[in-house]
Amino acid sequence: MTSFRSVRLAKRPTGLPSADTWSIDTQELPELAPGEFAIAIEQISLDPAMRGWLDDRPSYLPPVEIGAIMRAGSLGKIMESKNSRFPVGSQVVGNFGATEIAISNGQGARIFNPELAPASTFLGALGMTGMTAYFGFFELGKPRAGDVVVVSAAAGAVGSIVGQLAKINGCTVIGIAGGKEKCDYVTKELGFDLCLDYKQDTSMRKQLGEALKQLGAKGVDIYFDNVGGEILNANLAYLSFGARVVICGAISQYNATEITPGPSNYMNLLVKRASMKGFLVFDYESEFSVAQRRIGTWLAQGKITAPETIISGDITEFPATLNRLFSGDNIGKLTLKIN
Amino acid sequence: MTSFRSVRLAKRPTGLPSADTWSIDTQELPELAPGEFAIAIEQISLDPAMRGWLDDRPSYLPPVEIGAIMRAGSLGKIMESKNSRFPVGSQVVGNFGATEIAISNGQGARIFNPELAPASTFLGALGMTGMTAYFGFFELGKPRAGDVVVVSAAAGAVGSIVGQLAKINGCTVIGIAGGKEKCDYVTKELGFDLCLDYKQDTSMRKQLGEALKQLGAKGVDIYFDNVGGEILNANLAYLSFGARVVICGAISQYNATEITPGPSNYMNLLVKRASMKGFLVFDYESEFSVAQRRIGTWLAQGKITAPETIISGDITEFPATLNRLFSGDNIGKLTLKIN
Repeated sequence: MTSFRSVRLAKRPTGLPSADTWSIDTQELPELAPGEFAIAIEQISLDPAMRGWLDDRPSYLPPVEIGAIMRAGSLGKIMESKNSRFPVGSQVVGNFGATEIAISNGQGARIFNPELAPASTFLGALGMTGMTAYFGFFELGKPRAGDVVVVSAAAGAVGSIVGQLAKINGCTVIGIAGGKEKCDYVTKELGFDLCLDYKQDTSMRKQLGEALKQLGAKGVDIYFDNVGGEILNANLAYLSFGARVVICGAISQYNATEITPGPSNYMNLLVKRASMKGFLVFDYESEFSVAQRRIGTWLAQGKITAPETIISGDITEFPATLNRLFSGDNIGKLTLKIN
Repeated sequence: MTSFRSVRLAKRPTGLPSADTWSIDTQELPELAPGEFAIAIEQISLDPAMRGWLDDRPSYLPPVEIGAIMRAGSLGKIMESKNSRFPVGSQVVGNFGATEIAISNGQGARIFNPELAPASTFLGALGMTGMTAYFGFFELGKPRAGDVVVVSAAAGAVGSIVGQLAKINGCTVIGIAGGKEKCDYVTKELGFDLCLDYKQDTSMRKQLGEALKQLGAKGVDIYFDNVGGEILNANLAYLSFGARVVICGAISQYNATEITPGPSNYMNLLVKRASMKGFLVFDYESEFSVAQRRIGTWLAQGKITAPETIISGDITEFPATLNRLFSGDNIGKLTLKIN
């Protein structure tokens, strides 16, 4: 018999997840039913949205149930199979969870070719991260060359790609990130025009106003928001006419234990005839293959750099790795590589 | 010589406008230049947006300058003219200000036929009020028969028309208004399906949840917001998938002297793939005539009732009449009829 460990939700967290949020259990791999296959998980995606899945409230997906294996995008190699479409030895990516071995019936699973790009890319730029950046930016942002685009969490998994998509499309791009190291990375490695450091003493509102003046820009045409809070509010203050605010995430608020204030400058949506809109990447599933082909080409051409932070460890490192997302220390896509 | 009085902005108000906000001056009617005409003002529109025009901050229109005649939509009869397109005796409506006599060069002025509808209708349902309701509802709300539409300030000038447009288009309509009298008016006279009283002890969030349950509705498809604050926030909590939030006004906040919190439930825009969008009626000027024809037909057919509160008085009543908007006592379009 083969045994494997999984990370399960033990207790819903208040604020940042802590040790008692999780339990690690060991089980034996059961006999596969017809149509099923087993995957030896090699890499697990860590995403800010995971925090929302831990709360027991209605959202776009049901909350992870107490005692269930933590929901996570992950990839690995098929080690056993009773499904002819998913043969042993194939590399697959899907929503397999935070576990050493996953059993799948193929739903949502996709075989990928690791010779086309490093495997982790299929969780990142060619996975949900890249799809989120692509559809949020193009479908909701509706960019035109010359637009001024502001991206928060600019050194993060999604933000880093959004800014580069904007540059490819002839936009001027201002990133917002925490700390000089990240800001330097965003401008020097990712090619953003400017990057504002939200950890500086100067308020984001003031910094943004000065950045726009420096660029000779009238305002923000697209604000791609990954963080919420004061940074969203500062951007609302500088909208251009007809601006598009894309609500992708609100990492500044995910661990809040009290109700956080909404963006008080929202009335500028009226003054500037602007829109603020949310989206979920799943809605664009039928178009993923087109987006993957385009991003794949840009990666191959060197027009997009997909930064990654890969933590090597065993499955017990999952809880600590998840919390790295909220400390703001990582650059790019964060994954746990199971060793 | 003919002399006339005007209401001028004397001092920018903090909070609700007060006696020292305004001055009334008297001047002589000067000789008209070629192309000009003079209007004896008969009726002046009072609109919540006026409060915003008194603040010295960037907005969609420049602030009213200190010492200038208060900006206002108004109508009257041409008493003198050096413009052949605007002959003496014609009834005209335009942005003529809070004054007994206005001089115009014809820009933004429009001759109307008082036999088609009572003159005040050209400030209300066939004027900016009706245009705001029409374009906000159709262009941003994008209604489909069967949609659940919530309208705040439902007994107000714009809200009362929005709800009736929604009924004409086969929607289910929930109004929100203050007090039993207004709520009764909204359901019995205007034909809304339900009206929630925000002055009740029960929170708007709870009331709205119960109303939706009573209607067997999954959520709010269109929320037409005239008030902002907690009522906006309650609606954000109940958005249906793909819901449209139309930001028309925020009367609950116009006289606020401190920064008011934004809507903390805005993240539901993401969960529900919804949009929140602002608009200005001026953007649709080229389509006004179509909208006026359609609303005019519905008025004539009795499908739309355009409630009005008309205050009779002289020009010195303007300041007190304006403040009635913020006490929430009026039903429908508020105008000052100069006697």
